[in-house]
Amino acid sequence: MPQLGLLHGRAWASLLGKLLRPPGAVCIGAVHSHSQVAEAVLVSQLKPHQEKSNFIIKTPKGTRDLTPQQMVVREKILDLVVSCFKRHGAKGLDTPAFELKEVLTEKYGEDSGLIYDLQDQGGELLSLRYDLTVPFARYLAMNKVKKMKRYHVGKVWRRESPTVVQGRYREFCQCDFDIAGQFDPMIPDAECLKIMCEILSGLQLGDFLIKMSWKDVRHEMVAKKGLAPEVADRIGDYVQCHGGVSLVEQMFQDPRLSQNKQALEGLGDLKLLFEYVTLFGIAEKISFDLSLARGLDYYTGVVYEAVLLPTPAQAEEEPLNVGSVAAGGRYDGLVGMFDPKGHKVPCVGLSIGVERIFSIVEQKMKTFGEKIRTTETQVFVASPQKNFLQERLKLIAELWDAGIKAELLYKNNPKLLTQLHYCENMGIPLVVIVGEQELKEGVIKLRSVASREEVAIKRENLVAEIQKRLSES
Amino acid sequence: MPQLGLLHGRAWASLLGKLLRPPGAVCIGAVHSHSQVAEAVLVSQLKPHQEKSNFIIKTPKGTRDLTPQQMVVREKILDLVVSCFKRHGAKGLDTPAFELKEVLTEKYGEDSGLIYDLQDQGGELLSLRYDLTVPFARYLAMNKVKKMKRYHVGKVWRRESPTVVQGRYREFCQCDFDIAGQFDPMIPDAECLKIMCEILSGLQLGDFLIKMSWKDVRHEMVAKKGLAPEVADRIGDYVQCHGGVSLVEQMFQDPRLSQNKQALEGLGDLKLLFEYVTLFGIAEKISFDLSLARGLDYYTGVVYEAVLLPTPAQAEEEPLNVGSVAAGGRYDGLVGMFDPKGHKVPCVGLSIGVERIFSIVEQKMKTFGEKIRTTETQVFVASPQKNFLQERLKLIAELWDAGIKAELLYKNNPKLLTQLHYCENMGIPLVVIVGEQELKEGVIKLRSVASREEVAIKRENLVAEIQKRLSES
Repeated sequence: MPQLGLLHGRAWASLLGKLLRPPGAVCIGAVHSHSQVAEAVLVSQLKPHQEKSNFIIKTPKGTRDLTPQQMVVREKILDLVVSCFKRHGAKGLDTPAFELKEVLTEKYGEDSGLIYDLQDQGGELLSLRYDLTVPFARYLAMNKVKKMKRYHVGKVWRRESPTVVQGRYREFCQCDFDIAGQFDPMIPDAECLKIMCEILSGLQLGDFLIKMSWKDVRHEMVAKKGLAPEVADRIGDYVQCHGGVSLVEQMFQDPRLSQNKQALEGLGDLKLLFEYVTLFGIAEKISFDLSLARGLDYYTGVVYEAVLLPTPAQAEEEPLNVGSVAAGGRYDGLVGMFDPKGHKVPCVGLSIGVERIFSIVEQKMKTFGEKIRTTETQVFVASPQKNFLQERLKLIAELWDAGIKAELLYKNNPKLLTQLHYCENMGIPLVVIVGEQELKEGVIKLRSVASREEVAIKRENLVAEIQKRLSES
Repeated sequence: MPQLGLLHGRAWASLLGKLLRPPGAVCIGAVHSHSQVAEAVLVSQLKPHQEKSNFIIKTPKGTRDLTPQQMVVREKILDLVVSCFKRHGAKGLDTPAFELKEVLTEKYGEDSGLIYDLQDQGGELLSLRYDLTVPFARYLAMNKVKKMKRYHVGKVWRRESPTVVQGRYREFCQCDFDIAGQFDPMIPDAECLKIMCEILSGLQLGDFLIKMSWKDVRHEMVAKKGLAPEVADRIGDYVQCHGGVSLVEQMFQDPRLSQNKQALEGLGDLKLLFEYVTLFGIAEKISFDLSLARGLDYYTGVVYEAVLLPTPAQAEEEPLNVGSVAAGGRYDGLVGMFDPKGHKVPCVGLSIGVERIFSIVEQKMKTFGEKIRTTETQVFVASPQKNFLQERLKLIAELWDAGIKAELLYKNNPKLLTQLHYCENMGIPLVVIVGEQELKEGVIKLRSVASREEVAIKRENLVAEIQKRLSES
């Protein structure tokens, strides 16, 4: 958004903060923070065979382990997000978890105090990355890359104080898509909005809206383009009344705007953007927001954020809690900050608030009582008889070698009932059973856990039969 | 490996070190390490519009960015590794990048000096994780989990000195699979060996061998089982002569061993393990190694490592460089170190040396001149005429909405040749072309980049035709 895109100091840290950490989330065990406690842990840990009374073992404040259940939800969501990024031609990129401390300096304004520094153990001074945008800009400048469409999924770290902002995570995942390069105006910007819509529609989280910061647009027009404040406010009136796509058309019908050269110039990019999002079929998802204007030091243009719209029931319960689930904006100056000669590479990008989305989806699954399978095992290898471990091992190796996901119990002589219960608990759909009789007849019993039906299959046809059943289900 | 599994202090840090970092790899820009340099960077960075002469922008020493090419190779390898872990019924788990400093204390022996500490910015004292095993044990103890089969793919950090050990990375990826729980002996251990074989076969890196540490086994027999050293050495003779699977049978035919109660007891687990790996069809891949005996403080039993065997040509060039690409072992005491009452959870696991494997595969692809596609774009949207941006945008949105991976140039009026060149450079197989004539006739031209054949397709049939072509290719 070149014409609108030269604001300085319009940042969006708190937006991203709000976006990327679920506001209601509670940190696991985030109570004890004194090094005395840590010392107690140390002392008690190293004497494992003594009785320990004050033993505290935990993850660091503001961090958590992800359980297998959470990992399954996460994997599904990240798959959807990444496949959308790839659908739009993005390349993958990875950067180190830490950067030279100086790389992060003066990029985040007052939020710089939240950066984790590594201890000076000799050598370079390092900090954990605070987002994925600054490392991307550093990569572009370092390798003199002038043009790139990339995505990056990775963790970032921020020393948020859980006592100040309840429930913010200090370690969380970001999913970023960015387009770097000098292009004709508004085409990449519109694609970023399209990507947000595709992802949010795909995730089926309910209705959503993408809000563009009117404050940023106005500041741009007045401070950078020299538009008279009263003309900008005239535009603001339209923004306030109409918000969305009909806005631009109506403004052009107002002679006080359409006959004002400055106003027309200021409106040019907005017009293009609305034209493109209309062609993309997402115009009704875009509107202006009068209160939004936030960000990190490096943002240079209008920023936007996506919010989920509450259902009528939710609106009654907590009318203010429209959750922000994605955000983006232009940062045309950041790469130049790393370039020896200050050469700029204009960039526009977006970040999907996956942590927020994870917790919404988890909550939904809980509400609907959906049981999440934490393994993908397709076949369980069982025997009703003693001394059949050898046969079970031979059989399971056949299945593994055929690419079939299979498990058995690590027990010499497990009871059949124990083995069948395991399948039911873990949601394993098929059981193969080998016993004396089967061995004699050269068959294996194939059992469906759901229907409890069993059929005898010739050993040599077993793999094919299993693959057939799995492909049908 | 319970009977063999109570060694203490037999660690394998240097093995893992060797394993997980490609020895020949060179760190990007790992030359400048003084904070003076960093200060110069700081000063120059913050004055982007001045001429900068001493500007140095780099990743931290021992770290590197992964380019899109590298990311593609990495993704393919990790997919294969993770799908093998899932085939064996493993659940996913994730832990924070840093732990309480005390969690890592006294787990890594003399390698503890390589742990990255975070600066004390108030609150807890934290360290970056050094591997994925200690966080897993911490998770089990913290949540009182007695039984779990999990995999974890993630980065770990070690302050290796590149001046001492040339080319070691300080940030690298680990892929771990572990089985925690009390089970009948040797069944999980054999499955770990099977997994190593499946992954190394699947990756088609050439022939390989898994070597078990004889030193650990001998120490176990003598120090823990009270076997007379001369009997242990008698066993050692067999190890030296035979190495692999025939070993155990032959030993049992030697009356000096088969009539010695201690020897029989000491050999029991070994016998089981060789029986199981034979049933798994991988016995010929396993052998003893007389020099191997390394590890971290927490390892309690025999350790094993997988090495690639050189081809005859390689053997001539560099006969000693058999590369280690996976390692594993038993650590029955680690979880107990975190438990207030010292309750133990026996564990066995393995780690795939993916960094080493990445560089081998990259090298192979370079040698064979394989061009790596860094995007997955299937269709390019082009126009031969001016003022067709609107039509291109409308068309590409249709493709995206149908799940087709599509790109266009962010230019109002690109030349057709430029657009077709882009497809050839990026390896995009199909182009859809819209122009005046096509618009008039209600068709779109579909072009195969390879054959340069073009056919006109009715607009309403375009998506179906593209999907058909993509499914055929």
